[in-house]
Amino acid sequence: MLVSALLTSLLINSGLCVLFFTLYSILRKQPSNYEVYMPRLLAEGESNTSSIFNLERLIPSPDWVKTAWQLTEDDLLSSSGLDAVVFMRLINFSLRVFLFAGVIGVFVLLPINCSGNQLQYVDFTDLSNNSLDVFTISNVNNGSSKLWIHFVAVYLVTIFVCCLLYYEYRYISQRRTDYFLSSKPQPHQFTILVRSIPVSAGSGVSEKVDSFFREYHPSTYLSHIVVRRTNKLQSLINDAKKLYTRLIHLQSDPNQQKYKRSSCFGLFGRKVNLVDHYEKKLEDIEENVRLEQSEVSLAGEEVRSAFVSFKSRYGAAVALHLQQSTNPTHWVTEQAPEPHDVYWPFFSSSFLRRWISKLVVILACILLTVLFLIPVVVVQGLTNLNQLEVWFPFLTSVLTITFVSQVITGYLPSLILLLFLKMVPPVMEFLSSIQGYISNSDIQKSACSKVLWFTIWNIFFATVFSGSVLYKVSLFLDPKNIPSRLAVAVPAQASFFIAYVVTSGWTSTSSELFRIFPLLWSLIKRPFTASRDTELEVPGIPYHSHTPRILFFVLLGINYFFLAPLILPFLLVYLCLGYIIYRNQFINVYAPQYETAGKFWPIVHNSMIFSLVLMHAIAVGIFTLKKLSLASTLVFPLPVLTLLFNEYCRKRFLPNFIAYPAESLIRKDRQDENDPTMPEFLDELISFYQDPALMPIHYSGSSDRLNSPLLSSVHQAQV
Amino acid sequence: MLVSALLTSLLINSGLCVLFFTLYSILRKQPSNYEVYMPRLLAEGESNTSSIFNLERLIPSPDWVKTAWQLTEDDLLSSSGLDAVVFMRLINFSLRVFLFAGVIGVFVLLPINCSGNQLQYVDFTDLSNNSLDVFTISNVNNGSSKLWIHFVAVYLVTIFVCCLLYYEYRYISQRRTDYFLSSKPQPHQFTILVRSIPVSAGSGVSEKVDSFFREYHPSTYLSHIVVRRTNKLQSLINDAKKLYTRLIHLQSDPNQQKYKRSSCFGLFGRKVNLVDHYEKKLEDIEENVRLEQSEVSLAGEEVRSAFVSFKSRYGAAVALHLQQSTNPTHWVTEQAPEPHDVYWPFFSSSFLRRWISKLVVILACILLTVLFLIPVVVVQGLTNLNQLEVWFPFLTSVLTITFVSQVITGYLPSLILLLFLKMVPPVMEFLSSIQGYISNSDIQKSACSKVLWFTIWNIFFATVFSGSVLYKVSLFLDPKNIPSRLAVAVPAQASFFIAYVVTSGWTSTSSELFRIFPLLWSLIKRPFTASRDTELEVPGIPYHSHTPRILFFVLLGINYFFLAPLILPFLLVYLCLGYIIYRNQFINVYAPQYETAGKFWPIVHNSMIFSLVLMHAIAVGIFTLKKLSLASTLVFPLPVLTLLFNEYCRKRFLPNFIAYPAESLIRKDRQDENDPTMPEFLDELISFYQDPALMPIHYSGSSDRLNSPLLSSVHQAQV
Repeated sequence: MLVSALLTSLLINSGLCVLFFTLYSILRKQPSNYEVYMPRLLAEGESNTSSIFNLERLIPSPDWVKTAWQLTEDDLLSSSGLDAVVFMRLINFSLRVFLFAGVIGVFVLLPINCSGNQLQYVDFTDLSNNSLDVFTISNVNNGSSKLWIHFVAVYLVTIFVCCLLYYEYRYISQRRTDYFLSSKPQPHQFTILVRSIPVSAGSGVSEKVDSFFREYHPSTYLSHIVVRRTNKLQSLINDAKKLYTRLIHLQSDPNQQKYKRSSCFGLFGRKVNLVDHYEKKLEDIEENVRLEQSEVSLAGEEVRSAFVSFKSRYGAAVALHLQQSTNPTHWVTEQAPEPHDVYWPFFSSSFLRRWISKLVVILACILLTVLFLIPVVVVQGLTNLNQLEVWFPFLTSVLTITFVSQVITGYLPSLILLLFLKMVPPVMEFLSSIQGYISNSDIQKSACSKVLWFTIWNIFFATVFSGSVLYKVSLFLDPKNIPSRLAVAVPAQASFFIAYVVTSGWTSTSSELFRIFPLLWSLIKRPFTASRDTELEVPGIPYHSHTPRILFFVLLGINYFFLAPLILPFLLVYLCLGYIIYRNQFINVYAPQYETAGKFWPIVHNSMIFSLVLMHAIAVGIFTLKKLSLASTLVFPLPVLTLLFNEYCRKRFLPNFIAYPAESLIRKDRQDENDPTMPEFLDELISFYQDPALMPIHYSGSSDRLNSPLLSSVHQAQV
Repeated sequence: MLVSALLTSLLINSGLCVLFFTLYSILRKQPSNYEVYMPRLLAEGESNTSSIFNLERLIPSPDWVKTAWQLTEDDLLSSSGLDAVVFMRLINFSLRVFLFAGVIGVFVLLPINCSGNQLQYVDFTDLSNNSLDVFTISNVNNGSSKLWIHFVAVYLVTIFVCCLLYYEYRYISQRRTDYFLSSKPQPHQFTILVRSIPVSAGSGVSEKVDSFFREYHPSTYLSHIVVRRTNKLQSLINDAKKLYTRLIHLQSDPNQQKYKRSSCFGLFGRKVNLVDHYEKKLEDIEENVRLEQSEVSLAGEEVRSAFVSFKSRYGAAVALHLQQSTNPTHWVTEQAPEPHDVYWPFFSSSFLRRWISKLVVILACILLTVLFLIPVVVVQGLTNLNQLEVWFPFLTSVLTITFVSQVITGYLPSLILLLFLKMVPPVMEFLSSIQGYISNSDIQKSACSKVLWFTIWNIFFATVFSGSVLYKVSLFLDPKNIPSRLAVAVPAQASFFIAYVVTSGWTSTSSELFRIFPLLWSLIKRPFTASRDTELEVPGIPYHSHTPRILFFVLLGINYFFLAPLILPFLLVYLCLGYIIYRNQFINVYAPQYETAGKFWPIVHNSMIFSLVLMHAIAVGIFTLKKLSLASTLVFPLPVLTLLFNEYCRKRFLPNFIAYPAESLIRKDRQDENDPTMPEFLDELISFYQDPALMPIHYSGSSDRLNSPLLSSVHQAQV
């Protein structure tokens, strides 16, 4: 790829970014877009919803940048929880890494690469006609002693990243403990989920649970609630809920048309009072729900799982950590998620069934990864103009136009890839959800790892090797030669990945700000629905699609910083954009849906370690290729030390991300002893884990609708 | 190797076995050998030590075989503990597997192999001149449909072994629970070891432990004892102990010479009363010990570890399973071993130091494994007569003698290998002991795994590939082709391994019966020492050398049963010998040194699974080689299913082998509530974990010497 192609891509994307920023600055001020750009503020009733028109509304203003910039970590913690803090620290961490690597890369390595002439001399008179490869390590002369500077850079960056990782892990671990110690009593701290309860023929699950815990945990056991199959009920209740919201809006909004004609597209027929009509319908559904509820409660719809609550956090932890039964596959205990985080639809019961479904999902993931290679290979063909002309000869004339060819090589491939990748997070989330996780947060965490490895495999490895695979399939299955193959293939794709950072990275971040799909969706549905017909839903940030994306760019940065330092400025721009934009979104758009208290960080840590080791493998290969075998030998200790460092961190910090230690639990329990509200809290503790589908509903004819049990329980759970 | 060579080896070894059996039957009846052949009975005072000579003593009698045969599992359990039962069940298990495989192998596969003519027709007129290879699968014609019978055999044996493994795991798991539930209160059930205790400058370890557990486990904490560095003390005490035993014997034996001349080889000089002389010396040492003891107790010789005891088993388990501190590398808890099982010499304290020493030991093991290949390769050269003649031309004349060449090819290689291997278990035990394990049982368990993998790697893989490595080094580093390389190399070594079973297996078992080294040692030292000068030490069975040996033969059996079924009869003889001999040794020789309650079984299980998967890899290779690619494809599900089965067993049974479940612990604690001896037991609980080196000693001038605290504490601990 030529420099000019990169410049074209750069121009397009900068333009897009500026456009998005400007549009956002204007559109966010239009009241009709509030539910797209500040649903969170809207839900909290904090936005100024005055719809008075003034000129200021049409002038783009950057005040939101200032607000986002000034947000402190503590503010973020109190408003969006520890997970948001961890997410922002990831960006912060990456910024620091690439500032350090960027200084080394741009001011030391880049001049060295340019000064070589292995490929060609740099043509300083017409920079844009140079191939991007002259800025990579490939241009340094073979065996040149200047490569030792690259070697030192590899060591320096590894040490820097490891130190930073250590401090970050320690900091977040500390934050997690502080968060726990300062938290109010929460139901999930006192509760565990017990699965695979062995049931003999005559007795029910509930009696069994009660007798077991009364026998073996008499001093701490409080109560329990058995999980039931409620899939059918749930859909009924959803219908009722929709109807109810519609009804509320009808009643509260005086401008709303309250009558419709009963037939023929609302044109003819008798006028019907809409409110009465809906009330009638709602009553019918509620009757159905009640019937179904009593059926579920009576009949054998019990799942062999139960939420069991204890009088203290310590009691719950003891029951959690000790193997309960002589058969370890019975009475399997698990931390209970937050009540509003429970994923009800899928409660597969038996130990064996969950285990098998897990295996099936793993298999499905592997299959998906393999099948995904096909579109990626096709897309990569597009970067290769000659290939394209061979496949589609009729395009030859078009492709000779410089601009077209530049767009195709610099922009199109990344965009197509981006669209394909958009589909991956939801698919992975679905796969995780049928894997047997019991909470949305676990599902997203698992999906996060899946998406990450998927991205690394399908974007990085497939791109790096596909150019080669086309003519070197036979060498692909030879693990010993991977470093040398990486050394050949990875620098060759430097220009693709630089373009990828610009197109995919910049565009995805600014489209995140602009919220292009929600905006389109809102524009489309606006003419068809009444303005407040549907309840405003504040979205949660989908960590499982955003975290892997950032981690992947970090992986690119770490691997290319010494091969093609030119990637670093673009990455820094990407991270700066992300820094501001995500802060803004946390303030205005996303509300926390759950609180894992930083459990995403171990995924980040593992990904960083993997990036480092991959970088070392490439370094070994490249120094061998560049005929500096001493350097390639001296790189060997690095991956070993990095892995040992990782092992140490696993022992030192990871346990704190799995469960809280006895020390914290007991200290917290003692604090509560003086709390006068505790008895009340413990009394209603287990009711938090009542399946929402089984709560009595009485929307219809209810005088004080906003305090209906369903809504209030949801409200309670979120406190 | 020709059949005749195997027959020669068979003859020699059968002769040796018969000789050993006969000699044993005679020698065991001589009172002077009682301490070699029945130390256990002697120590228990059950042996008939009458030294009246009669003719019967010179006639070999097989009555011990009958006694060993009649021993029931419950008898074995009560006399030698669950570990011995598990060991015997391993032999039992192997017998059942090879009876099943043997019927298939000898009556179905062997005739098929002989009927082929891929290598040569079987010369039935002169069987002994046939190569052993005609009995292997290599002789079946390529692509022959008869190979499907081998395929079915592979499936049948895998299913049979897996079923048996499942039932055995379940049975032993059940036995373990029963054993726990029927056991008397034991100190290690109530105690945990706490390591890496964080100590601030001013305070001691002891106060820290006390305040920590009083704070966080107030209701269950009982007491604690801090571990101290006592290496120097231990050697002093050993001296005192030796002197004391000598003194006791002097006093108790009226025939003993009680005087010696004070100088010049006891010929001239003043007569000295030996008893007084020893008493004096003993007093000096004891004075030293007391000085050193007070020094250790006062000065900062505290290790940052402590044994902490609790009022109930459940309390100890809770403290064990919960992470105690917010820093997971502090207050690291571990199950306490039995008091007499504690390995005192090495108590490295800090988390980091133990971790590093573990890494160093792993590295040392790998190095040892690699360096060991050199003698093995040399030894394997001996089987190759042509090779030998090339290396040592002067031997040519000798090697032409049929008998010599047969001995060399059939017998010598295995014998040399055997001697080399004798050194491995002690070395591995030493490596495990510096790895930071705190009990002899853990050390032996770890050494057991090490020796097993060492044996598999250095005997199986090195033998299989060394013949090939000599001319095919380049192919060695190619993991993808391992099945096909195994398929070529493994059958080629069939004759070596058949000979190996006969020489190494048979000889090692019968020399185990004959106890050749202890016998020689006893014969050598007898003229130099007074008959009862040293205390009789009852040995414990070294599981870490016996278990891996049996497991290795099982691996050979499983891998060769369909390649060279001829190995199976020899293996069955080996196992039958082992069955009788080990039972006899458990009755007469070995006393239990510790009780892990069957924790060796998971090692056995893993080894079996590995054997199966290796067998499948070979099967894949061999069916490809034999041009029956459909069969080789159809074998693929087997290793996957076997590994899944293993994974299921890990989840279903393994947790029970790591710790006891809450259910059992609480049931046991409730039983004890009614036990009137419990308060007394709890009172002296922690004193069991007093380092023996720190106990007050007063041998000298003690009136009732046999009740000296040292001996009585040892006695107590063994109860």
